[in-house]
Amino acid sequence: MISVGIIGGTGYTGKYIVKFINEHPNVSDFSIYANKSAGQSLHEVFPDLVSEVENQTVKNAEDLDLSHDVYFFALPHGESFKYVPMLIDAHKKVIDLGADFRLDNAELFLNTYKLDHTSPEFLKSKIYGLAEVADNYESTNLIANPGCYPTAALLSAIPLVKYFGENILSVSTVSYSGISGAGKKASTDLLFAENYNSVKAYNVGTHRHEVEIAQELNKYSNEIDYSLTTHLLPVFSGIYSTTIIHVNENVEQENINSIFNQEYSGKTFIRLRQTPPELKWVIGSNYCDINVKAAKNKIIVTAAIDNLIKGASGQAVQNMNKMYGWDEALGIKIYKEEFQNV
Amino acid sequence: MISVGIIGGTGYTGKYIVKFINEHPNVSDFSIYANKSAGQSLHEVFPDLVSEVENQTVKNAEDLDLSHDVYFFALPHGESFKYVPMLIDAHKKVIDLGADFRLDNAELFLNTYKLDHTSPEFLKSKIYGLAEVADNYESTNLIANPGCYPTAALLSAIPLVKYFGENILSVSTVSYSGISGAGKKASTDLLFAENYNSVKAYNVGTHRHEVEIAQELNKYSNEIDYSLTTHLLPVFSGIYSTTIIHVNENVEQENINSIFNQEYSGKTFIRLRQTPPELKWVIGSNYCDINVKAAKNKIIVTAAIDNLIKGASGQAVQNMNKMYGWDEALGIKIYKEEFQNV
Amino acid sequence: MISVGIIGGTGYTGKYIVKFINEHPNVSDFSIYANKSAGQSLHEVFPDLVSEVENQTVKNAEDLDLSHDVYFFALPHGESFKYVPMLIDAHKKVIDLGADFRLDNAELFLNTYKLDHTSPEFLKSKIYGLAEVADNYESTNLIANPGCYPTAALLSAIPLVKYFGENILSVSTVSYSGISGAGKKASTDLLFAENYNSVKAYNVGTHRHEVEIAQELNKYSNEIDYSLTTHLLPVFSGIYSTTIIHVNENVEQENINSIFNQEYSGKTFIRLRQTPPELKWVIGSNYCDINVKAAKNKIIVTAAIDNLIKGASGQAVQNMNKMYGWDEALGIKIYKEEFQNV
Amino acid sequence: MISVGIIGGTGYTGKYIVKFINEHPNVSDFSIYANKSAGQSLHEVFPDLVSEVENQTVKNAEDLDLSHDVYFFALPHGESFKYVPMLIDAHKKVIDLGADFRLDNAELFLNTYKLDHTSPEFLKSKIYGLAEVADNYESTNLIANPGCYPTAALLSAIPLVKYFGENILSVSTVSYSGISGAGKKASTDLLFAENYNSVKAYNVGTHRHEVEIAQELNKYSNEIDYSLTTHLLPVFSGIYSTTIIHVNENVEQENINSIFNQEYSGKTFIRLRQTPPELKWVIGSNYCDINVKAAKNKIIVTAAIDNLIKGASGQAVQNMNKMYGWDEALGIKIYKEEFQNV
Repeated sequence: MISVGIIGGTGYTGKYIVKFINEHPNVSDFSIYANKSAGQSLHEVFPDLVSEVENQTVKNAEDLDLSHDVYFFALPHGESFKYVPMLIDAHKKVIDLGADFRLDNAELFLNTYKLDHTSPEFLKSKIYGLAEVADNYESTNLIANPGCYPTAALLSAIPLVKYFGENILSVSTVSYSGISGAGKKASTDLLFAENYNSVKAYNVGTHRHEVEIAQELNKYSNEIDYSLTTHLLPVFSGIYSTTIIHVNENVEQENINSIFNQEYSGKTFIRLRQTPPELKWVIGSNYCDINVKAAKNKIIVTAAIDNLIKGASGQAVQNMNKMYGWDEALGIKIYKEEFQNV
Repeated sequence: MISVGIIGGTGYTGKYIVKFINEHPNVSDFSIYANKSAGQSLHEVFPDLVSEVENQTVKNAEDLDLSHDVYFFALPHGESFKYVPMLIDAHKKVIDLGADFRLDNAELFLNTYKLDHTSPEFLKSKIYGLAEVADNYESTNLIANPGCYPTAALLSAIPLVKYFGENILSVSTVSYSGISGAGKKASTDLLFAENYNSVKAYNVGTHRHEVEIAQELNKYSNEIDYSLTTHLLPVFSGIYSTTIIHVNENVEQENINSIFNQEYSGKTFIRLRQTPPELKWVIGSNYCDINVKAAKNKIIVTAAIDNLIKGASGQAVQNMNKMYGWDEALGIKIYKEEFQNV
Repeated sequence: MISVGIIGGTGYTGKYIVKFINEHPNVSDFSIYANKSAGQSLHEVFPDLVSEVENQTVKNAEDLDLSHDVYFFALPHGESFKYVPMLIDAHKKVIDLGADFRLDNAELFLNTYKLDHTSPEFLKSKIYGLAEVADNYESTNLIANPGCYPTAALLSAIPLVKYFGENILSVSTVSYSGISGAGKKASTDLLFAENYNSVKAYNVGTHRHEVEIAQELNKYSNEIDYSLTTHLLPVFSGIYSTTIIHVNENVEQENINSIFNQEYSGKTFIRLRQTPPELKWVIGSNYCDINVKAAKNKIIVTAAIDNLIKGASGQAVQNMNKMYGWDEALGIKIYKEEFQNV
Repeated sequence: MISVGIIGGTGYTGKYIVKFINEHPNVSDFSIYANKSAGQSLHEVFPDLVSEVENQTVKNAEDLDLSHDVYFFALPHGESFKYVPMLIDAHKKVIDLGADFRLDNAELFLNTYKLDHTSPEFLKSKIYGLAEVADNYESTNLIANPGCYPTAALLSAIPLVKYFGENILSVSTVSYSGISGAGKKASTDLLFAENYNSVKAYNVGTHRHEVEIAQELNKYSNEIDYSLTTHLLPVFSGIYSTTIIHVNENVEQENINSIFNQEYSGKTFIRLRQTPPELKWVIGSNYCDINVKAAKNKIIVTAAIDNLIKGASGQAVQNMNKMYGWDEALGIKIYKEEFQNV
């Protein structure tokens, strides 16, 4: 049984970390740290969880100590790298849901986030925790949890980039995200009245997740010509990700199917679909539902995730499970047998 | 361990029965019967459950046999009373989510549903399964599961009708229901394009649930002047129920609070709130969240439930638990301890 | 041809005032005053109007002068009464969309808005501009434009209060409003992510509009026992208003119909419906659609308006038309003939 | 003054044709033909138009005669080509909102719609009515009104295909459409409960509009490698269209801007934006709002239209105006002067 610290745990993502950790069979206790809501009761912060989670007081991030075994960070970028070195030095496990450790070198981080990285050595030693693809979990105590758009886009594109390599002409992802992805900020841009019955693209050509995705794709094939275009979708949560890959040959549906079947065989949280997924199929779950369609010299991959779960907190807990060598679904997915002994 | 039959289990309500029954620790197996989708696979009917529920073929309702211990019926009115006598004769337990057994006598049933009741004797022997109010579960094998609107309205009004009795001048409930309440019917009235960005009242002054609620309230005080007005709300699920009670005296907030605290003390699925509930707090759960507000000689009770769960399938499983003398939350609410032994 | 000043014209209500005034055939020019967005261009504030309205710079409210004939105020309460005396003294026409002049005496204003009224004499001389009910427009230069909830509730209840008078036992209105009603404020309560897929009651038993409605109803019959319960509806605009009236006699549908037919005969913007209105029928228009249903000793009136139009800006322009003795629909409703001479 | 016949005028598109034609200054009268709702009153079909449009009885399509000057067809494919030859022979003007005349040859029509074209000669003589691009309107009496997706996609891509020609590597459009685009069909797929809080791609790799767009793009540059992926968006109306164009050179923002400025200079219904458009900016209007963004060797064009207006009925009326040589905005956009003479 382990003890867990959750830093920045009172936003939309935080709620699901709390929920999963609270129900996790191998977690004995947890504490929440969050400056903005420090001193509030957890029941006040999450009124729908009052019957599920014991009330506790949200602590100030400054009071973070070494009493826990695992630390989840869900903070804006530039925050978690202040805490991580101390924790890693103390042989703690850290899962960072923010962007601080996702990129592989300090220069790229500076260019992308306009910020000097204060712990660049950890950029190398961390694992980029795309849970169905990453391995070698025993080698590290630091996981950079992937961004929400990258999770869906990479799970869609990696099998094809691995297979087609330099025969790929272009890879374009067009993604729509529920508005929880922008966080719980008092901004008029995020008002109900501004977003209902509407849609808009944002950060076109400049989204930081494009850099993250390109970095990972280029590990499988050099010089992928990649484009990510992100949109706000008028729903609470969920990402719908459509990736169009142009290749310089005709493509067979059967062939594509078998590439994906092989890549994701035995992966609990990937569900390959024979039709394009519906976003509602994955909302509230850690699944990534994927459909692949060959159309002459193009391949269209549609993927759906819950941005707050598979795109954040669910994958983070999945990563914790993998760090400990437990079943990756522990505490995330309910198996019938789990109830048998009540 | 028991075996469960679910008849009419492929609609919106059915999905949650399947989900709860599938995860229920005391259920060994279940079968689904549904004429419209007979022969289809369960995974085809509920694509979001493919990783949760073993695939099985939906059976024809005609093939219903006596192999199960408990039978859930989720059929249009006038259907379940064809099957129930046979099952009760065979000492099976039956929970009817439809309207066939909710009213207490055949004449009222005829007036309300324009249909002759073929098993009127069961109208007397059944229990009206408003789970927080009903008792004497050991006396019967037939539960009439309350309607969705009545569940929220009765949990709001009963404590006050009991207390104020003949001092009540009028009781008016105005309810808004998510559109799943109308079922999965191919009707233009239920199209997305017809209901998005809109609201409408329906069955004003003639809703059958008004009769059901009045019947139950009148058990606590004669001649309650009751009115229910129902509306379609442009969300998938959930009922928001606002009940205004005019009484002939001034009312103290503290007094009202203590009436509700006493009435619902120890009830797992009632959460008394200090502010009006938000519908999202209860979606996906079996909770009924309630707030009571005294305003001079008026009391306003706001209550929120998920119409498909507390208003249907969740309460049905809660009723099954009570019939067997189990914890009423078994299979519906996840307790941390349930996971400990994995 | 007249000149119009719009003070506080850059919120959700403001947009429609601008639109109507811009298209109004008898308006030669208009200016916008709004402290928060002073200095911005109108096209920046209302990007969807860039092709409809000439660009102009939003002025500071301090620069308000006497150059206009009519002034529309759309400010929080406690603001417009600072400007109104000066304008009325200068024989200008004023239409106040805020609450400052709606109540009839300073004491009620103080109790309701917790603010001393600095121009109480105007509370008497103003007209409460419920356009289908008010008359004597030539007697005043100051119109208090009704609140959004009161517009729908009063148009629903007044005909019945006039007719049934002391035979009325209770009047209860339950209203749901689109979220634009709360204004364009950077508040987490109003975020998309907080309100999507949800509903909540607010200000239960304490809403200021309840006082306003009761004041007006009591002009037709003393001691109406009135209750207003307000809710946030997850749409942009629109109010759906359900009023339940318990009377001490049985009521005939035919009788009720003829009361409403008579009351609203010849009123352009009232549409009496044979079924409950759908909210979408009135969105974007100045109509109030009403259905009345008799149910034994109860009458249920459902009414739908666009809160930003009939509940604010549209009715304000309608009031301006009535002050000038023009067709009340001028600039609000498009008649075919208006286009004939292009 | 002309007379107009509208065939298939009672669906979602039909409502806007009726509205525009009813308010059009040069139209004296119109009739509606629609088999499904023949015999119904127009007020029954469109309850929100009861105060705008004189009531008339919907006629049976079989009763279509030669009494009108212009005929709008809004029928499923394979229907309008039964009527068109007769009307064209009689020197009537025809605007077909369906797909029957959009493609340029019978073979492509057969491959795409699996139907033999019975009037292939008109495929050549018609004009493809993309109103900002088409010319030579005096040469024909038959306009094929573009599909909704093609309208947004072609207005986005044509300027760039003209300019970059063979330097283009790939063009991919990802479009999201409001659900009204699927029509008013009693199908469970289109239910509110199925589409709320969800999104899905459909007809991936096989959408007929892809063929239509490719046909038009190839008029500017051979062998464009084009892909269209379409999705259902949970709103009533609107199309958001994101087109990613990979070229084999680096692209300057300034250059791209000037290409679009030149192409659409003086076009009433194109609004070039400096940020990606928001869908709500165009809902209810005939505008196409466009933003173009250069990102190294990629260009991302976002465009928003109302699928029922610029994507159907509005563009159809715009085409009628152009056929008669009138201002293209007549009856569609309100100019201040139109009201002056009332």
